[in-house]
Amino acid sequence: MLIVGDGMGDRPVPSLGFKTPLQVASTPNLDEMARRGQAGLINIIAPGIPPGSDTAHISLFGLNPYEWYEGRGPFEAMGVGAELEKGDVALRGNFATVEERNGKLIVVDRRAGRKVPEAEELVKTLNEKLGKVEDVEVRFYHATEHRLAVVLHGPDLDDKVTDTDPHEVGKPVAESKPLDPNDPKAVKTAKILNEITLRSYQVLKDHPANKERVKKGLPPANIVLLRGAGMLRKPLPKLQERYGIRAAAVGATALVLGVAKAVGMDVYIPKGATGGIDTDYKAKARKAVELLKDYDFVFVHLKGTDAASHDGLVEAKVKMVEALDYIAGYLLDYYDGEAVFVVTPDHATPLTVKEHTGDPVPALIYGPTMIPDDVKEYNEVSVRGGALQGITGRDLFHLLLNYANRMKKFGA
Amino acid sequence: MLIVGDGMGDRPVPSLGFKTPLQVASTPNLDEMARRGQAGLINIIAPGIPPGSDTAHISLFGLNPYEWYEGRGPFEAMGVGAELEKGDVALRGNFATVEERNGKLIVVDRRAGRKVPEAEELVKTLNEKLGKVEDVEVRFYHATEHRLAVVLHGPDLDDKVTDTDPHEVGKPVAESKPLDPNDPKAVKTAKILNEITLRSYQVLKDHPANKERVKKGLPPANIVLLRGAGMLRKPLPKLQERYGIRAAAVGATALVLGVAKAVGMDVYIPKGATGGIDTDYKAKARKAVELLKDYDFVFVHLKGTDAASHDGLVEAKVKMVEALDYIAGYLLDYYDGEAVFVVTPDHATPLTVKEHTGDPVPALIYGPTMIPDDVKEYNEVSVRGGALQGITGRDLFHLLLNYANRMKKFGA
Repeated sequence: MLIVGDGMGDRPVPSLGFKTPLQVASTPNLDEMARRGQAGLINIIAPGIPPGSDTAHISLFGLNPYEWYEGRGPFEAMGVGAELEKGDVALRGNFATVEERNGKLIVVDRRAGRKVPEAEELVKTLNEKLGKVEDVEVRFYHATEHRLAVVLHGPDLDDKVTDTDPHEVGKPVAESKPLDPNDPKAVKTAKILNEITLRSYQVLKDHPANKERVKKGLPPANIVLLRGAGMLRKPLPKLQERYGIRAAAVGATALVLGVAKAVGMDVYIPKGATGGIDTDYKAKARKAVELLKDYDFVFVHLKGTDAASHDGLVEAKVKMVEALDYIAGYLLDYYDGEAVFVVTPDHATPLTVKEHTGDPVPALIYGPTMIPDDVKEYNEVSVRGGALQGITGRDLFHLLLNYANRMKKFGA
Repeated sequence: MLIVGDGMGDRPVPSLGFKTPLQVASTPNLDEMARRGQAGLINIIAPGIPPGSDTAHISLFGLNPYEWYEGRGPFEAMGVGAELEKGDVALRGNFATVEERNGKLIVVDRRAGRKVPEAEELVKTLNEKLGKVEDVEVRFYHATEHRLAVVLHGPDLDDKVTDTDPHEVGKPVAESKPLDPNDPKAVKTAKILNEITLRSYQVLKDHPANKERVKKGLPPANIVLLRGAGMLRKPLPKLQERYGIRAAAVGATALVLGVAKAVGMDVYIPKGATGGIDTDYKAKARKAVELLKDYDFVFVHLKGTDAASHDGLVEAKVKMVEALDYIAGYLLDYYDGEAVFVVTPDHATPLTVKEHTGDPVPALIYGPTMIPDDVKEYNEVSVRGGALQGITGRDLFHLLLNYANRMKKFGA
């Protein structure tokens, strides 16, 4: 059982008397696990390297991100439900609002007002009318609000192309171009992106949902602007193949769930899980307990700690740490003495910085038959000197599987 | 002096009051070395990775097994006396019993009754009559009981071939086939394996030793079945070349002695050394003392700790730990103040798991002019926080050579 508090690590916070949220929060369950197991300060990727949420989780799932990471695109698409194969190109898409002026499509709102409750309906139409462009299958997936993922599946594609999103209002829709005009795959892909963007306008401009929006005075979601092409060149190896384990993920954050899916986890988003500080963390705990009956490995992701940090919300972060403690305690009630537990941030997001940093983070591992160390509490200060030292996120994953007697022997 | 207790690391054992064998055993000599030297918990390969005995020793001899390990085959052959060169193919062989039925050779006992005291004699005949097949030299080596190693030396060989051992009684002898029928080296090798198997039957079926066996009602050892082809593609660099040291190994386990030989050690199996819990460990101690007069480096391997662990024999493991302490004490009596000593498991084999695990293991290093740390006893619990931290088996080997002033400077 891997429980990750996103961005949970921190530095001394002035308004907390120069203590960290983990020091201030009431975390009886995490403290109990630290006391009975082993803890320490670890580097998810390497000392001083601020991990992204994607690279951090690649490491926490046992792989070296320097070897396997190729960009966020494919993970985000997978996180909103896309199935990606080797050679597919994934893009981020926005529902946007354009106006025809002098035969040009001028962007007037890059996000079509942000709130697009008609998104599912519009996506359905896009998939019906725009499912194939030349010999390439095109699939649209709704993420949140105005956000989409778009996947191209077909021969001879490449991600070295520019965006059709001009990234500025008042500008015409951009023309996607190959970075290298002599690269036939990039030439082909750029042409398809331009075709998709243009045809999305033709399909959406007179869509009944948009007519309704205009009637209400809302900007119509009448085009899909594309950006951030990323290609899946090197699919991550699956946990099932690497260790023979069945794995499940519980969370709500597309990028992280995408990485989980990419390593072969089945992904569950419980009702009420939002990826924000308003998430129903109790629903996550219940879901995880249920899943561990059927799966060998369950990963629970709590984004709220990171969301609070990015916004500098001190009290909210303390509360989210306590939410993580609740999840840990709930799971412990069901599986103490049976499962091996790891609790860790994926990186620090100090409230004073509001961005990911490369500080070492406190991690703990607790399970049956482990020799406890001398750590008595779980926070950045008290775990120092514990048994977990000089290790990375992937080492932590290997230790988890090792103490669950699921690691395969290397050699004879 | 490197002293390895195979699989000696452990987890808390319920019948030992949740202590480990190292905590319970009486180890005055190991404790003394830990007190006067440095100790700590180390990862022979990497955190959480359960080492095989072969990969563990590659690391303990200063090499990265991820870079150098190609499979157990060549090491096992070397461990029973084979000399292997680059491009040679090694196989495991069994003396087996076959019967002719309708022109086919049907396997009736894959191990010829297991006990084959005539093995040396039969191997001698095989080497005389079957020493060359086409342009390939064939060499047979007796391991233990019905077990052989077979080495092919010649041009254009490959290990990507199937076994002639059908792995089941009642079946005909299998035909070795290349995994890829268009690979001329594999085609050639498969043909030679079939030839060896067939001719071994012709050579052995009327052998006087087998006639005697049949008279006694024993199954004749009338064929050699081959399996597990492995090729030496990348010979390990020799200690002599790497460090200019002359090295010797004392032990009885073919796989481990094979790795020792592969890095250039001269291998010694003292009379009475068995690789089991009945081994004459005092003979090993005496042999090691004797060898260190002539060699710069002596490696002593005790397998009994691992053998006891795999069988879940708690008392036997405690006794074998005490045997290792005896060896350490005996060597210390002769070389205290002169030699540098390292004592370490090659991996943990917890009695509760009965298999290799990736837990960190307690290691110690003791020699003249080292700054001692605060560790007072040698076991999994007491060495935590010692000077040896965050290091691997190969680091430990480098430290050993370093404190013996035998490491070469890297750079100018």
